[in-house]
Amino acid sequence: MQVNILITSAGRRVSLLKAFQKELRSRFPGGEVFAVDYNPDLAPACHVAHKSFRVPKLSDPTYADRLLELCIKYQVKLVIPTIDTELIILAGKADEFRSHGIQIIISSLEFVRTCRNKRSVHAFFESREIKVAREYSKQDYEIPLFIKPLEGSGSSNTRAILSADQLLEEQVLDSNLMFLEYYDKKEYDEFTSDLYYDKQGILRCVVPRKRIEVREGEVSKAVTKRNILIDFIKDHLGHVDGARGCITLQLFKEKDGDDVIGIEINPRFGGGYPLSYLAGANYPAWIIQEYLKHDTIEDRFDCWEEDLLLLRYDNEILSRGYKG
Amino acid sequence: MQVNILITSAGRRVSLLKAFQKELRSRFPGGEVFAVDYNPDLAPACHVAHKSFRVPKLSDPTYADRLLELCIKYQVKLVIPTIDTELIILAGKADEFRSHGIQIIISSLEFVRTCRNKRSVHAFFESREIKVAREYSKQDYEIPLFIKPLEGSGSSNTRAILSADQLLEEQVLDSNLMFLEYYDKKEYDEFTSDLYYDKQGILRCVVPRKRIEVREGEVSKAVTKRNILIDFIKDHLGHVDGARGCITLQLFKEKDGDDVIGIEINPRFGGGYPLSYLAGANYPAWIIQEYLKHDTIEDRFDCWEEDLLLLRYDNEILSRGYKG
Repeated sequence: MQVNILITSAGRRVSLLKAFQKELRSRFPGGEVFAVDYNPDLAPACHVAHKSFRVPKLSDPTYADRLLELCIKYQVKLVIPTIDTELIILAGKADEFRSHGIQIIISSLEFVRTCRNKRSVHAFFESREIKVAREYSKQDYEIPLFIKPLEGSGSSNTRAILSADQLLEEQVLDSNLMFLEYYDKKEYDEFTSDLYYDKQGILRCVVPRKRIEVREGEVSKAVTKRNILIDFIKDHLGHVDGARGCITLQLFKEKDGDDVIGIEINPRFGGGYPLSYLAGANYPAWIIQEYLKHDTIEDRFDCWEEDLLLLRYDNEILSRGYKG
Repeated sequence: MQVNILITSAGRRVSLLKAFQKELRSRFPGGEVFAVDYNPDLAPACHVAHKSFRVPKLSDPTYADRLLELCIKYQVKLVIPTIDTELIILAGKADEFRSHGIQIIISSLEFVRTCRNKRSVHAFFESREIKVAREYSKQDYEIPLFIKPLEGSGSSNTRAILSADQLLEEQVLDSNLMFLEYYDKKEYDEFTSDLYYDKQGILRCVVPRKRIEVREGEVSKAVTKRNILIDFIKDHLGHVDGARGCITLQLFKEKDGDDVIGIEINPRFGGGYPLSYLAGANYPAWIIQEYLKHDTIEDRFDCWEEDLLLLRYDNEILSRGYKG
């Protein structure tokens, strides 16, 4: 049986794609990893994939159908989504794909919807007794504050407002912008953690990565840390209905204490996941074991190396004869 | 004789460093390429260099002396600067380094000073009959406009102001911000060109690269183009007193016409230079030939491949046991 994997909205996810290539090859030697993108010519990961395909924009109502056709035609068994804006579309189509023997590695539509909106993810954190930054009303706020879109990913439109003259009238009027309590980086570290949930929604691994430097919303320097966050996350999020595969959780952690504040959840592989992979938290292998080999994943909280520093730099892919 | 090269403020310049490693090794087999940075632990290029060293911050008055000591101790013959903020310091020290047999590949202090300030670089462009964006007075400007610091590099603090409500009071008051005529990306492409000037300040190569996508001021997608800019640059900048080695020139070029507007000049290797290298414009080799082998560089305007598309993605370097 030909077993192929497809990574959607592949863009610059070269390291993630290579990880799937390596793990698939060692378990299904003939298996190939494909990539799709709206503009595969300009997507580095599409140049590294075995094959790549152009798909319509996510806003195009035919997106999911076109993806399903490609999966059927090219014997794709697993689909790995990578960006927030496609999660709701794909979570809603998971059953239809499954009826064709194709598994989208994605959380339930309900959990994806919770994560997509910052107010509902705050409510989710509070239901799990995780503190969140207080939201100010637009009529009554304190400066410094942190502004952030209700829906959005990466760092687009987020900004710390440290003095009144930095705040624009358009930001006050924009109902999609939340005004949040400000946490000072001098007192709090920002941690992104890669969580692995098995097919039952049971947490099997946590890798906390401290952010040292960020470039356009994506981590460029980070270090794995074995600290209190692991037990904290086990205690509060040890089982989450509908959570599946890799979930990226962002928290503030007090530097000189144990205060923890929930920021957001992205129910997909985050841009910084390659650090956890290189540290030994092999989620691509576990996905292949769970979904293609029907193995069970046991607790793997100790499988990864701590104090591993990741430094990113620009590598290049070249393509000849580009007439654009 | 041991012949080593040192790259300063190495940061993420991994591709540039690897290019120098490759070109040096093929000409001086025992030669090594070193890197310095204020924080070498966190600089990817320092992990790829043969050796790396910590140097003081550029603002520290001992910076150049410490660099000179390192060059002497480790038999460095060539120094390659990479960031704007160190050019004036190093251009002023070039003679002192040379008296120790160490050549800093850098333009004259006068030319570096011209490039550092946006008003003087505009005056330089005009002296070469190259059009520039009109500068508005802060009392009398038209919107849309483009704001840009008089001194600064990358895209920090540059912004297009498309409507009056995007303009902050603090921007109007900031005397370091220039208000410039706005060029619409629908009508103009932005080209960065890598120019090579020989030891006589004669232009020997031009590679125009069209910017397709930029990430935090550094190009992430670009394509080499053999177009009218080559003859334009030859005509206007064929000889520049004091220009040496790689100079990065930014221009707007009209999409449907031949209008060309000068934007800025960075007298150093730009972040996007690896594209020109990979296309065949081998400036590291020419620097080694000129400065270490005392060869002459002839015209090399045709040595590079056109329509070569560069796509950048994040690659990782790991370092164990980081306690930060």
